[in-house]
Amino acid sequence: MERRENYCVFCEIIGGNVPGNIRYQDDDLLVFDNQLHGLWVPVMLLVVPRRHYSQEEFWTSDEFAAAAKIAVRMGSQYCPDGYRLITNVGSQAMQSQSHGHIHVIGGTRLGMYVYGPVPFA
Amino acid sequence: MERRENYCVFCEIIGGNVPGNIRYQDDDLLVFDNQLHGLWVPVMLLVVPRRHYSQEEFWTSDEFAAAAKIAVRMGSQYCPDGYRLITNVGSQAMQSQSHGHIHVIGGTRLGMYVYGPVPFA
Repeated sequence: MERRENYCVFCEIIGGNVPGNIRYQDDDLLVFDNQLHGLWVPVMLLVVPRRHYSQEEFWTSDEFAAAAKIAVRMGSQYCPDGYRLITNVGSQAMQSQSHGHIHVIGGTRLGMYVYGPVPFA
Repeated sequence: MERRENYCVFCEIIGGNVPGNIRYQDDDLLVFDNQLHGLWVPVMLLVVPRRHYSQEEFWTSDEFAAAAKIAVRMGSQYCPDGYRLITNVGSQAMQSQSHGHIHVIGGTRLGMYVYGPVPFA
């Protein structure tokens, strides 16, 4: 594993230095619980590449097709009544982790996918 | 184009029977404006396969890696300060169109990606 210049909690979970509730792993990808799992909505999972890609690197990477399949598998397994797949890119999307990931959220009615200024102002 | 049992507005846009503001197209994929483009948030695009896949079929399809690359290209082009990529699967995620798609939304501060019961109750 390449040493990161900045601390990355996802890299630490992947490296086994920080505990994570790992739901799936293979040579390229892991799925573990968001720290908010069960707090904001019942199911909050993260599909994460082992390599420290940016979001856009991840979405254009060789690993992404497999990651998409895993995201769908996790969603249908843990959220049989529906789930939302999300990636936030950049500041206006409130991206908080530099390490690329797909959110898998569900387990309740999720409300609208836009929580924006109109018509929710 | 396979004839659909039920009306699908995305298939109609793809077939040229319903107008759409098409931002990109190739042999497998199109990007066009959501009808809500500019209403809920400034940028609301849809990355859509020509084939009438379900959401889960799309995310596990041969076309998906290319779709992911296009989604990132559209996001960075139209939303240089950040964007959110979303797919809603099933009723609890308020999926409204059967035809698989990725939402690309941005052009403003998007707020939290969870608009759920906690802590927003």
